[in-house]
Amino acid sequence: MTDSTRNEAIPRIAALINEIDICVFTTRGERGELHARPMSNNGQVEWDGQSWFFAPSDGRLVSELRADPAAVAAYRAEEGFTFVSVSGRATIETDEDLKERYWLDELERWFPNGPSDPNVSLIRLDAEHADWWTEDGDGNADLRQAVAAS
Amino acid sequence: MTDSTRNEAIPRIAALINEIDICVFTTRGERGELHARPMSNNGQVEWDGQSWFFAPSDGRLVSELRADPAAVAAYRAEEGFTFVSVSGRATIETDEDLKERYWLDELERWFPNGPSDPNVSLIRLDAEHADWWTEDGDGNADLRQAVAAS
Repeated sequence: MTDSTRNEAIPRIAALINEIDICVFTTRGERGELHARPMSNNGQVEWDGQSWFFAPSDGRLVSELRADPAAVAAYRAEEGFTFVSVSGRATIETDEDLKERYWLDELERWFPNGPSDPNVSLIRLDAEHADWWTEDGDGNADLRQAVAAS
Repeated sequence: MTDSTRNEAIPRIAALINEIDICVFTTRGERGELHARPMSNNGQVEWDGQSWFFAPSDGRLVSELRADPAAVAAYRAEEGFTFVSVSGRATIETDEDLKERYWLDELERWFPNGPSDPNVSLIRLDAEHADWWTEDGDGNADLRQAVAAS
């Protein structure tokens, strides 16, 4: 394991997850149990330490994050051995401009009323820690400081 | 989402994860943060509601599970859209016979001293809930009752 600074780690992680379309997003339920589900990586081209996801406002994911914002997004490349885990805290964004900004047309499959629907919530995951495992080696980074300062 | 009974769900889940070699295993750390890491599915041929993993006894994973046994194993098929999430509670097994029983030679890459090494721990995950998402539909099952009764 190599420890990286945030400045080294962000572009490294961005390159690793760039082409991974779906991640496993895990949260904690009200009885302390952990839940994982596949979530679209939302076509994010250049990861900067924040990840964005859409979910139904009245669904279990949003309700769990309101009670406990700890979450982790885990990415596995479709070919070769590449795993990336991004842990952090999630915020539910209800701002319509933000929802519009991160909206993708393909989301209409799940949310036919578009981003202005109040039952569409935007989740922002601020990375605090990341680990990665690749054929070229493993690494991890504490990403907290600069997230707090931004 | 279709709700299944345990008896329906166990063989269904076994068939889905049968050929998936690696899962994402998530636990909760001491500050409440969630950690995910890739773990070998341990060549499990016929899943019966319990999953088995090996980990270093002095590592973060074992220490986190001793403090909070809630865990989730998430599986993604290498081809096609198949995700399976198995939530439950983990137990650290130190019994040498059990460690011997679930040992695979390929684990010597990580644990060169073999299963009798006290720094090799066997983790048993007892499934309490499962969700799956496939091209043929989604489903979920409460797996608690019979686990408690077994």
